[in-house]
Amino acid sequence: MHDRVLEELERAGELVDDKIREVLPRGGAAELYDACWHLIEAGGKRFRPLLAIKSCQALGGAPEDVLPEAAAVELIHTFTLIHDDIMDEDEERRGVEAVHVRWNVPVAILAGDTLFSKAFEVAAEGGDIRVVRELARACTEICEGQAMDLEFEERDDVTEEEFLEMVRKKTAALIRASCVVGGLKAGADDDQLTALAEYGENLGIAFQIQDDVLDLVGDESKLGKPVGSDIVEGKKTLIIIKGLERADEGQRERILSVLGNEDASREEVLEVIEILRELGAIDYARERAREYAEAAKEALSRLPGNEHREFLEAVADFVVEREF
Amino acid sequence: MHDRVLEELERAGELVDDKIREVLPRGGAAELYDACWHLIEAGGKRFRPLLAIKSCQALGGAPEDVLPEAAAVELIHTFTLIHDDIMDEDEERRGVEAVHVRWNVPVAILAGDTLFSKAFEVAAEGGDIRVVRELARACTEICEGQAMDLEFEERDDVTEEEFLEMVRKKTAALIRASCVVGGLKAGADDDQLTALAEYGENLGIAFQIQDDVLDLVGDESKLGKPVGSDIVEGKKTLIIIKGLERADEGQRERILSVLGNEDASREEVLEVIEILRELGAIDYARERAREYAEAAKEALSRLPGNEHREFLEAVADFVVEREF
Repeated sequence: MHDRVLEELERAGELVDDKIREVLPRGGAAELYDACWHLIEAGGKRFRPLLAIKSCQALGGAPEDVLPEAAAVELIHTFTLIHDDIMDEDEERRGVEAVHVRWNVPVAILAGDTLFSKAFEVAAEGGDIRVVRELARACTEICEGQAMDLEFEERDDVTEEEFLEMVRKKTAALIRASCVVGGLKAGADDDQLTALAEYGENLGIAFQIQDDVLDLVGDESKLGKPVGSDIVEGKKTLIIIKGLERADEGQRERILSVLGNEDASREEVLEVIEILRELGAIDYARERAREYAEAAKEALSRLPGNEHREFLEAVADFVVEREF
Repeated sequence: MHDRVLEELERAGELVDDKIREVLPRGGAAELYDACWHLIEAGGKRFRPLLAIKSCQALGGAPEDVLPEAAAVELIHTFTLIHDDIMDEDEERRGVEAVHVRWNVPVAILAGDTLFSKAFEVAAEGGDIRVVRELARACTEICEGQAMDLEFEERDDVTEEEFLEMVRKKTAALIRASCVVGGLKAGADDDQLTALAEYGENLGIAFQIQDDVLDLVGDESKLGKPVGSDIVEGKKTLIIIKGLERADEGQRERILSVLGNEDASREEVLEVIEILRELGAIDYARERAREYAEAAKEALSRLPGNEHREFLEAVADFVVEREF
């Protein structure tokens, strides 16, 4: 079934990239649009557009019905990546230089802003004000979640509950919105929209936790960034929160000496990952990711049964089993 | 009539600030919403909301019909100020520290992004997809204009035509959109919307040229920033473009030695302002601003005659006669 998900990701990617090419020009003053295109061209799974398309199909719509909205969510996603990389001082993304490194901070701020407004241009093209409302709310939540994530870097006492609220906003809100706009464009009723929202939110949390797992155990060439980069940035992932909770004094000291320490050596980072593994923190995160994936599938049971719903179920498995 | 404009600015400000208070909370993670509020509370004329309200009234609508949209344009305006200050490394605005100085660059990026998405949330609340389309297009133009403005800093050969294209996008697009959304909410027909768009665009260009004049000859306490700050930042205003065109070799050298030179002394800046004055570059800009204000008034003649249209005419005079 994973192959099927990969195939569909590719197919959705082609459709949505065609749409993005329609709305996003090239070049422009100070290479503004080249900077906008940089990360889009560098790769990315087009995961959110696929969810918009499949959610639309699950409720009887066609992929074409939701292409402007699918493009909009990918543009929003790209905007957040560009701005996050500035804030987190990340220099690499998708195997290429971050936009603020390839150009500079002002161009990266502007490229993000441009993608943001282009997203609302293309979403408005779709003609449904409820889509705009859903996407705008999600964008506000993304900002709130990112603010929490940044603030967490300064703290060692972040709780699992706080972490989940942050992830619900920073990552899950746009994934939820992708599913909801798919439903909206298919004419879904309120109960169906609620089910899609629950599916998307739980899927989004599972997605982020798995992302955090992969940051520690993933293949660097597939990740496009060095292993353990969340640790040296001081990110309070579920794994770190659980690890700190279970660590004895010595382990805690070793974790904290590397957490948020940009000068930590690769060996030190790998040692901390090993400690987190021994403490069962990585397995704990995997289990929680699996639970959220199951909750996502459970929400789908309130939608009519068809192959597209089955596909969305498979996506939930894929999200927590993927290795990139 | 200026007193009348000031009174109406204050009245529109109260209405729109009430609306903004409804949609924009306080505090939040990492003081995110405090950072959003910082420049809104520091002052500002609420010029764009006034235009939205009066354009709506000129076509038979009521102020209440356009309050969400009026709030949206002010939120968008504030977002651009916060991001522009980061890009331009401006440390002061409206007499207070810029957001990235009071907090830091990540919080300022996020505060801008949050205002941006809140703007679309509140615009969508108004329920008219054409409003969203108009605002999103204006936002894209603002980004393009800002990219041009930044690129112009690296060049000494910017033409008047290029300058006007930049201003049309960076400043006039949102002023135009403010007028158009006012018309949309009043049920204006296409010809009326076109007239409002022409009014707003010409008004916006006049507004920016006058802003550039005031940067050189204005009262610092009213400007909230030091006189001549555009010069040391290397901004290619119409005054600089005209000054360089008319300067002899010695004058050109003196202008260029201060242009974009953050280390220039106050005396050197004042000397360059004096040269620009002697060359008639400041008067030239004033004349052009007046022409655009007249073109704005001319566009209004295609709207039904009433007191609100007269008020919009007075706004055009106010824009080029104001001293702050």
